[in-house]
Amino acid sequence: MAKKNKTARPKARLPRGLRDVAAAELASEYAMLEKIRAVYDRYGFEPLETPAFEYTDALGKFLPDQDRPNAGVFSLQDDDEQWLSLRYDLTAPLARYVAQNYDGLPKPFRRYAYGPVWRNEKPGPGRFRQFVQFDADTIGAPGVAADAECCMLLAETLEQLGIEAGNYIVKLNNRKILDGVLDGIGIAPGADGDTAKRLTVLRAMDKLDRLGLDGVKDLLGKGRKDASGDYTAGAELSANGIDRVLGFLEATAATRGDTVKALAGLVSGSEIGEAGVQDLAEMDDLLTAAGFGDDQVMIDASVVRGLEYYTGPVFEAELTEKIARAHSDDGVELPRFGSVGSGGRYDGLVARFKGIEVPSTGVSIGVSRLQAALTALGLSGKAAELGPVVVLVMDKEELPRYQRMVQALRAAGVRSEMYLGGSSMKAQMKYADKRGAPCVVIQGGDEREKGEVQIKDLIEGAIAAQHIKDNKDWKAQRPAQFSVPEDKLIAAVQEVLQRHTPKPA
Amino acid sequence: MAKKNKTARPKARLPRGLRDVAAAELASEYAMLEKIRAVYDRYGFEPLETPAFEYTDALGKFLPDQDRPNAGVFSLQDDDEQWLSLRYDLTAPLARYVAQNYDGLPKPFRRYAYGPVWRNEKPGPGRFRQFVQFDADTIGAPGVAADAECCMLLAETLEQLGIEAGNYIVKLNNRKILDGVLDGIGIAPGADGDTAKRLTVLRAMDKLDRLGLDGVKDLLGKGRKDASGDYTAGAELSANGIDRVLGFLEATAATRGDTVKALAGLVSGSEIGEAGVQDLAEMDDLLTAAGFGDDQVMIDASVVRGLEYYTGPVFEAELTEKIARAHSDDGVELPRFGSVGSGGRYDGLVARFKGIEVPSTGVSIGVSRLQAALTALGLSGKAAELGPVVVLVMDKEELPRYQRMVQALRAAGVRSEMYLGGSSMKAQMKYADKRGAPCVVIQGGDEREKGEVQIKDLIEGAIAAQHIKDNKDWKAQRPAQFSVPEDKLIAAVQEVLQRHTPKPA
Repeated sequence: MAKKNKTARPKARLPRGLRDVAAAELASEYAMLEKIRAVYDRYGFEPLETPAFEYTDALGKFLPDQDRPNAGVFSLQDDDEQWLSLRYDLTAPLARYVAQNYDGLPKPFRRYAYGPVWRNEKPGPGRFRQFVQFDADTIGAPGVAADAECCMLLAETLEQLGIEAGNYIVKLNNRKILDGVLDGIGIAPGADGDTAKRLTVLRAMDKLDRLGLDGVKDLLGKGRKDASGDYTAGAELSANGIDRVLGFLEATAATRGDTVKALAGLVSGSEIGEAGVQDLAEMDDLLTAAGFGDDQVMIDASVVRGLEYYTGPVFEAELTEKIARAHSDDGVELPRFGSVGSGGRYDGLVARFKGIEVPSTGVSIGVSRLQAALTALGLSGKAAELGPVVVLVMDKEELPRYQRMVQALRAAGVRSEMYLGGSSMKAQMKYADKRGAPCVVIQGGDEREKGEVQIKDLIEGAIAAQHIKDNKDWKAQRPAQFSVPEDKLIAAVQEVLQRHTPKPA
Repeated sequence: MAKKNKTARPKARLPRGLRDVAAAELASEYAMLEKIRAVYDRYGFEPLETPAFEYTDALGKFLPDQDRPNAGVFSLQDDDEQWLSLRYDLTAPLARYVAQNYDGLPKPFRRYAYGPVWRNEKPGPGRFRQFVQFDADTIGAPGVAADAECCMLLAETLEQLGIEAGNYIVKLNNRKILDGVLDGIGIAPGADGDTAKRLTVLRAMDKLDRLGLDGVKDLLGKGRKDASGDYTAGAELSANGIDRVLGFLEATAATRGDTVKALAGLVSGSEIGEAGVQDLAEMDDLLTAAGFGDDQVMIDASVVRGLEYYTGPVFEAELTEKIARAHSDDGVELPRFGSVGSGGRYDGLVARFKGIEVPSTGVSIGVSRLQAALTALGLSGKAAELGPVVVLVMDKEELPRYQRMVQALRAAGVRSEMYLGGSSMKAQMKYADKRGAPCVVIQGGDEREKGEVQIKDLIEGAIAAQHIKDNKDWKAQRPAQFSVPEDKLIAAVQEVLQRHTPKPA
């Protein structure tokens, strides 16, 4: 019985929520990562790589329960009984790194990092349990100049990836202003207010996009019954409280300057609120000085996401509806892309370890999500790569001769290979097609005797094939196929490649 | 009490056997990966990325026990009770991928992949539980031409990384020849021989480097007592058997051709042994045709490592003693670098899933290990990168003005940043030093009024400082510091950068 089990074959399958990434998508991912890296580098950040694992307690946020600390993270127990977790973002490991190496680091410490992160969550369409993030953080920077840089970095990165101003927008808000508003209605954090009520207010505000102002108004007041008849209890704010919160959500004006003015009116008298307005005014000045306009970075008081986590400015980069509309001519309905990058100030992160506050701010681009969006928009930015030139094997005895041709092509920088399968001429041509080979090189006995090689241009051949009626015609014409002396092989192949390489604009 | 626990701070520490990789090392790792990728790409391989996890049964080799399948791999149980393991190499996930997508793939399928792999092993000096591999494999290639390509790929990659022929060597052997030798003495696998005896023989052969021929001879015969008095039992081969095995270990000659001849003599009469010799002769022809000499790829019958796993040719790339000697002038003793890449033919891998043999061969470069070796040799190939140009903050009211300068520098492609900390002039200069800034830009009130900026060349300044006696002299001379009109800032900074950028050879 044991024997039978042993010979049972495992099923080749991916764990749920994970995926393989094949050549075409990787080519555009590599190109994208390289462009992002160039921007982060030019902004003065330096790279850092931390390992995939951390001790679960050092990773924080998701605290282990006694049994198996699996709430949102992948965790496992080491030989020495300590719990390890796979990183769920790149910020928590950064905090551990900074705390561990604090004395030796430049202050501020500005690092970028990219790589996979893992979430032990229920997978769904477009929602994976492993995905790539690209982060930049400045640790030890008390002023909002560092936050302004985050907004610039987001905007500039998206533009370097080919997304013009107007097709994306970086939205900026400030936790302190929200606190100022909540202050005014007696439910600021730290105040003697009701935490549950505050959360209900935040949750209501976050539904602006979906429910509109009226829906939010209901949720701030008595509550709301939805279309299905389900009733959601409200925050039961006073009429004045509701007005203030709605005023906050509506404060967004056409320019950063006007939004700052509107917000100033809403929080006047609240110390923290006024400090928040001052932050935004300073950031506006820096953004303007650096040449970033209102169509690149806006102040949007309705950005609530992450406000519970961050302690000051928050930012979020979105692809706009405009870009989706512009690319939906063909009638295919495009998804709402939503956020492709976000971040904010989180002064408490390193304090977890050190007990002292280390003011920090940073930004994270969701590479996998952004790439999916760009691909859907046809903007993934990388032309399909040509496959390798394939030297066919017409005669097994002559392998060294074909190998020599391949090696000469490679030495000239031409991506190429000798066919390595064991099959017929037909299988070889099918292989070359499947690889996207621009051409194949053929030398049978006849050609060899004449000191020649045949080059068959597969791209031209495919076009010509559309105009040829039958097999007989084909054999008579042999379009896109020509002979050259063997010592002209490299030059002839390079000419074919040049013909099919897109010219730079 | 619960409250007290809650406020206890976690200790910032790395899990054992893991490490962080900081900027200087990453710069050379990125450069190295890029060079390797260019070679693999030119050889016609295409990229593939599989996720970090696989189902434990699909990963194979390390089979789960009922309790916790942790022998060598990191494993954890998913919500649905299925066991997942982190990949321990890049080959096992490839086999799963190929089996899962078999019908849609070109045949042969030639892919490269790189990334971290994880081993749940006892860490030691230079021995980590996460490290990077860079693999290339050809799946569905029955002939040894694909194996010859692996050797070429190893040699060419090392040369592209700056390691000349003679400083590395790719060693080639063939499992079939060993089987032929064992056949001759009645202990070939599959024969009616004694498996334990065969393993003892293999283990003895693997000790050639350490014990020399005499030591191996003892272990093939009665056994061996080492310096400490410990006794190791031998394989108890006959005198003839010992001679044959030693003859195999000594068969390596100065050229591939001569080694093939010597091996042919040792296995004559054994069908599998003769097939192995034929394989090597074919590979020699292909390597010679492609221009790879005996100082690049040699046949070395003493390479035993991996022979249990592979089914045909095996290869191993080593840095030679010559390179270690050449770089040990300064008296620092260098480690034996050993293998930096290896591979072989493993026709059974995909068969685990499909039930049919899919002949495959591939090679894996140990990126982390190779990089450590190159760094020890001073060959890591990447000059230390210049840090960012730092625009100092002399006057907090003027942040937008400094920001504008930084943005202009960045727009001109200059890596730069405004100082984002909150500290004194002294702290700012210390920061610039620590970041390796080539220069700082200074504009106080005086300069601003004159429409000027000061540029301080920190590299020249450091040199000049060695010749200046005291603070007074320094203040009088202010070496390597000069003023330019503000609109000449970019040109002046670029001039400083040019001065300090190493010229291409």
